[in-house]
Amino acid sequence: MLTRIILTEDEIPRQWYNLAADLPSPMQPPLGPDGNPISPDMLAPVFPMNLIEQEVSQERWIDIPEEVLEILYRWRPSPLHRATFLEKALNTPAKIYYKNESLSPAGSHKPNTAVPQAWYNKQFGIKKLTTETGAGQWGSALSFACSLMGLECKVFMVRISFDQKPFRKIMMETWGGNCVASPSNETQAGRDILAKYPDTPGSLGIAISEAIEAAVTDPTGQTRYSLGSVLNHVMLHQTIIGLEAKKQLKKIGEDKVDVVIGCAGGGSNFAGLSFPFVLDKINGAQMEIIPVEPTSCPTMTRAPFAYDHGDTAKMTPLLPMHSLGHDFVPPPIHAGGLRYHGMSPLVSQAIVEGLLTPRAIPQVECYDAAVKFARTEGIIIAPETSHAVAAAIQEANKAKEEGKEKVILFNLSGHGLMDLTGYDKFFAGELQNHALPEEEMAKSLEAIKDLPKPPLNKTGKW
Amino acid sequence: MLTRIILTEDEIPRQWYNLAADLPSPMQPPLGPDGNPISPDMLAPVFPMNLIEQEVSQERWIDIPEEVLEILYRWRPSPLHRATFLEKALNTPAKIYYKNESLSPAGSHKPNTAVPQAWYNKQFGIKKLTTETGAGQWGSALSFACSLMGLECKVFMVRISFDQKPFRKIMMETWGGNCVASPSNETQAGRDILAKYPDTPGSLGIAISEAIEAAVTDPTGQTRYSLGSVLNHVMLHQTIIGLEAKKQLKKIGEDKVDVVIGCAGGGSNFAGLSFPFVLDKINGAQMEIIPVEPTSCPTMTRAPFAYDHGDTAKMTPLLPMHSLGHDFVPPPIHAGGLRYHGMSPLVSQAIVEGLLTPRAIPQVECYDAAVKFARTEGIIIAPETSHAVAAAIQEANKAKEEGKEKVILFNLSGHGLMDLTGYDKFFAGELQNHALPEEEMAKSLEAIKDLPKPPLNKTGKW
Repeated sequence: MLTRIILTEDEIPRQWYNLAADLPSPMQPPLGPDGNPISPDMLAPVFPMNLIEQEVSQERWIDIPEEVLEILYRWRPSPLHRATFLEKALNTPAKIYYKNESLSPAGSHKPNTAVPQAWYNKQFGIKKLTTETGAGQWGSALSFACSLMGLECKVFMVRISFDQKPFRKIMMETWGGNCVASPSNETQAGRDILAKYPDTPGSLGIAISEAIEAAVTDPTGQTRYSLGSVLNHVMLHQTIIGLEAKKQLKKIGEDKVDVVIGCAGGGSNFAGLSFPFVLDKINGAQMEIIPVEPTSCPTMTRAPFAYDHGDTAKMTPLLPMHSLGHDFVPPPIHAGGLRYHGMSPLVSQAIVEGLLTPRAIPQVECYDAAVKFARTEGIIIAPETSHAVAAAIQEANKAKEEGKEKVILFNLSGHGLMDLTGYDKFFAGELQNHALPEEEMAKSLEAIKDLPKPPLNKTGKW
Repeated sequence: MLTRIILTEDEIPRQWYNLAADLPSPMQPPLGPDGNPISPDMLAPVFPMNLIEQEVSQERWIDIPEEVLEILYRWRPSPLHRATFLEKALNTPAKIYYKNESLSPAGSHKPNTAVPQAWYNKQFGIKKLTTETGAGQWGSALSFACSLMGLECKVFMVRISFDQKPFRKIMMETWGGNCVASPSNETQAGRDILAKYPDTPGSLGIAISEAIEAAVTDPTGQTRYSLGSVLNHVMLHQTIIGLEAKKQLKKIGEDKVDVVIGCAGGGSNFAGLSFPFVLDKINGAQMEIIPVEPTSCPTMTRAPFAYDHGDTAKMTPLLPMHSLGHDFVPPPIHAGGLRYHGMSPLVSQAIVEGLLTPRAIPQVECYDAAVKFARTEGIIIAPETSHAVAAAIQEANKAKEEGKEKVILFNLSGHGLMDLTGYDKFFAGELQNHALPEEEMAKSLEAIKDLPKPPLNKTGKW
């Protein structure tokens, strides 16, 4: 049986899909510190204008530049697999497909946007990119992309991860990236924090502040900042995943998908797979589209749709998104990529519009699913990805109960070879589930209670 | 430009190629402890009879079982890449192609033989496989294959690697493999060594002894031993690499290859890529075929073609091969897979027949090549693979000097994500070259001086 569906070079998508063009209600704009919408030129010190244009674009289809395609083609189109061994182990009538994004040189979907971001910056005359990284997936991907483009890359890595995951730093250095622990002495933001809390483990919020500061204060004006998730242009670049998947399913005569699943931290791998299917749903197709998050960081399933900052230090504009509050500190679960307090505005709005049905799954169930997956399908997945697999297994079991031959599709966003410690703890029985207590969430949400609120949409749902 | 050449499901090779059928002189048989050729049934306690039949087969083409193909198809055919970015960086007129074996779930070419070995054992009614592993690549691949086949897998891992590379053990466990440090208390061989040298770091030789003992002493008779390199049937299974590469080159009209390169420790990834090209050379094609080894373990470039044991404890039959002597202990270079004292009998005989031109390259040049490769082609390769890349760069530079548009093909045998420590040491300037001193080699070769010698071949070359 054909368990891997590939596309030839002629079949690679040549345009990205922009969901902003099709959402039932218009996107709410980002707001500045004064509460007024910010204009594109206010972002110019941070991002190059060609990416800002993509960020605010309402065009449905945006051409992928030929030079970007040539690099993406080095590992794309990624294969679509049918999980026949997992299906058999679950004894389910469902057909389970997964898109394998673990085969990129950086091991995840992240290079899908790192490459175009580096390319657009280079086109704009930029010589250096700065960014932050938590677990290290994004810092690795941007180092990889900058290396191919001949750009410098500076990565501020959250100190606790920097210390716990030394191999991620070596990866970045092998690609020529310069990775320092954050907070660092290289920025005012970093020095301020270190003066106050010399032993701080750091946070993504602090690292973002440092990366932005390092970009905007470069006197040459040839440095910009790069973000690996959350923003509209990042979601855009990732849609190549779902566009390929649709072609692959069509190729084997699979006309209808019943369930589409992706894990969601900032939202990019989920958006990448699902947005082309969300378009079908907007056009009337019946399907369930499920972004999955950890119960420890229930941004989509429990937090409000609100305006909030992207970082703890409140340096970013206010974005309309599901948010637990910019001070939120999630428990130290192993899926570091799913520990963000906010969620992509595009994903957030699609939730409010009723197009998505988010789900939260506890950590131990996710590792159980990951081990089952490794022992049937043979791929050791990232802790983030295990949330998608756990949801796919839930859906396959439901199909069995209902006796329905459903078609389930999920995104295998990355491999777990750099994150094996979590598996070790799982085998040792040392992993815990974390559900966010109600009072703790209420306290965290106080940080956003005085910020502007997004207006109700036309269905009155916000 | 097309930098990745893929094959569709119809184009996967359906037969393996057996070089033994075409070598100018017949292969010399393995010898037993009495110096007489061993018969296939003498190997029956160690290997299943269907694999023993492959080991001694003189058939040129051997069908790949349909069920094996179905599993291989989960990541095969592997892509053939054109290294355009590396070519540009080297400013060479040569065209450099590489076969990418790093995309298998275990990250190397090893599953190409782990899967059929597990399958043939299962067909023969075997329930459990034992093996040894040094750096961990092979133990991971066999754990992966056994997991898909529903077999138990027991891995004896050299203690020093077991302690230094804990992540490899977690990988194996995630696939359900049981990995213990060798020497262990689970075998007589292990207990004997521990009693004598309680602090021993272990060796591949000891681990092989333990794995064979664990297989042959299982009272149920349903356990066999599995080896990841050296033997004829292992080389056979790997030829799918070169057979695919030939189809891929043909597809883009590349009719003639000038140089074929692979790193060689036990010989399997090199044989896999090169043997189908060796056949062309036997039939008159002009090309250079280069197995590459470290200068620290110069099995092919300096050691004699002789009969020797595969393990330190002399439990294996005598094999006709290039060998530094079964007591040889190479320096602790990072390419753990290239630290074996012997070499595949098939590769060894092809050397003696003048079909191959082995080359030794020192460690620092290999890491320099690996970093150049990561920063141009974007893939972080295994330390073993870096030897192939270093030789490819040497050949590309030579083509530049000669002003010739040569076609160079090498095997990217595996990624280096589990071996980043070596890169770190390289960046810190802590890596050393090791050339084997003449007197040390002479001393090591004393171990084989009283063993039988292979007879001269018809050209009088041995």
